[in-house]
Amino acid sequence: MLEGLCAFPLTPVSEEGVDEAALTGLVARLTAAEVDSIGVLGSTGIYPYLDRTERSTVLEVAVAAAAGTPVIAGIGALRTREVLAYAQDAQTAGAAGLLLAPVSYHRLSEEEVYGLYRDVASAVSVPVIVYDNPGTTGFAFTDELYTRLAQLPKITGIKIPPPAAEVAHRVTALRSVLPGSVSVGISGDWVAAEALLAGADCWYSVIGGVFPATAQAIVDAATAGHREHAQALSQALEPIWALFRQHGSLRVVAAIAETFGWVQPPSLPRPLLGLSAQGRTELEAALQATGLAE
Amino acid sequence: MLEGLCAFPLTPVSEEGVDEAALTGLVARLTAAEVDSIGVLGSTGIYPYLDRTERSTVLEVAVAAAAGTPVIAGIGALRTREVLAYAQDAQTAGAAGLLLAPVSYHRLSEEEVYGLYRDVASAVSVPVIVYDNPGTTGFAFTDELYTRLAQLPKITGIKIPPPAAEVAHRVTALRSVLPGSVSVGISGDWVAAEALLAGADCWYSVIGGVFPATAQAIVDAATAGHREHAQALSQALEPIWALFRQHGSLRVVAAIAETFGWVQPPSLPRPLLGLSAQGRTELEAALQATGLAE
Repeated sequence: MLEGLCAFPLTPVSEEGVDEAALTGLVARLTAAEVDSIGVLGSTGIYPYLDRTERSTVLEVAVAAAAGTPVIAGIGALRTREVLAYAQDAQTAGAAGLLLAPVSYHRLSEEEVYGLYRDVASAVSVPVIVYDNPGTTGFAFTDELYTRLAQLPKITGIKIPPPAAEVAHRVTALRSVLPGSVSVGISGDWVAAEALLAGADCWYSVIGGVFPATAQAIVDAATAGHREHAQALSQALEPIWALFRQHGSLRVVAAIAETFGWVQPPSLPRPLLGLSAQGRTELEAALQATGLAE
Repeated sequence: MLEGLCAFPLTPVSEEGVDEAALTGLVARLTAAEVDSIGVLGSTGIYPYLDRTERSTVLEVAVAAAAGTPVIAGIGALRTREVLAYAQDAQTAGAAGLLLAPVSYHRLSEEEVYGLYRDVASAVSVPVIVYDNPGTTGFAFTDELYTRLAQLPKITGIKIPPPAAEVAHRVTALRSVLPGSVSVGISGDWVAAEALLAGADCWYSVIGGVFPATAQAIVDAATAGHREHAQALSQALEPIWALFRQHGSLRVVAAIAETFGWVQPPSLPRPLLGLSAQGRTELEAALQATGLAE
């Protein structure tokens, strides 16, 4: 399951709640594109902004629209108490895997993070993916902690952030210290092709949540070992990657979904604002330049 | 109200809920010490870890135990929707002021933060304090944003973090750009004496939440212009300040409250762990060295 393309849809919301019809449409596009898995309630799915009822709604809608495609559910929260409740809800709704980031306000220690994963892994019956996202959690995993976590039951994947240094080197190093039973997956769409070419098992993809065929083509080329083709496909999307790095990928894909009419603007919860007018002009140019405007 | 000593009590919790009796005891100690104000649901009061019902319980218990001492309530949350609800709850419970940090998961832009404060300031009837805490929110305020926010109605105080550079210089610089009607208050107990001597109006104090008389003595000395005495009193607490910087002040004051029997261990919500055995040994030595052990 934790191989190939895991596509992350937005959770379109208004101040009143989740837009279930729009979410169904977003997930159905991914199902139709035959992605390997669908990651709901990821960072792109704004899980920390949703309450328990809203998260359950998202899961039920997504599992139905996924029509058998495995659904991986984000379950992160500040308190272990809530994480365990969300894990139970996700399993009940039919999630095939759970994605857990060490969400923090007071910065967590290594032992606190280990304890969180230990408590969750011992309470669930489906695979758990360690979600390393220092930009949002403020917590930096060490390779030693990865290795300890990989020994826990149910921990079957690690989702790594784009590394500061060369991504191929990072993936190779991680593969050498982690057991083969643990999937190594990449975040940071602009380094995904290189990571896959270096042996990463899975791409946890933001662009795949809106343009699944575009992302799938990169996965297919990399998996087939067509290095130059995979690199060229990724390089062709550089105008989009630049906007991701500048504005945050969430704001960009929300604007894409609004542009194509897949969601109603504004689709992000306040205080988050969509892209500025200037950002939308840049996006329109990037969509034209990459051939995604259609 | 936003002058002198604002003492921040812990919110003692178990996995089941708030320990109301212990909270009453903690707040009553501050009331008896005649602090200028009591800051509940601050970072020390673990506001982001509590649900709406728990926050309301804390407010009701604290306002009763404060017996007329002004209570300032933390109202931060990821969504504007929740912040507005917490603000209303806090006013209903009798809070005299509201403390708002730009809590984030996806990092907020300056315009998003401005919009948050604008929306809240226009919806409330009591003073709002801008809570600048980059270590927990990941958001760095600029002086320009401070100045814009100070022009909003109801924004009557700014709580600044310990600056990287000299604190006296920072306080003086801020005082020169902000209107006199806006209180400048300091966080980071180890720089509080210097900040007060440089003209800061208020000390938002963690140590004051457990040892109010000790903190009050520093405020009194600084306010009276007794520079060397204020500095000596603060310097004498350096063993405690060192533990604050090493372990985070929350874990240290929770261990203090547990040591003195004011709260039942464990008093922090999982995945947060209390101080390690080694940390508690260091704390015991620090309490002895500073004369706080009694």
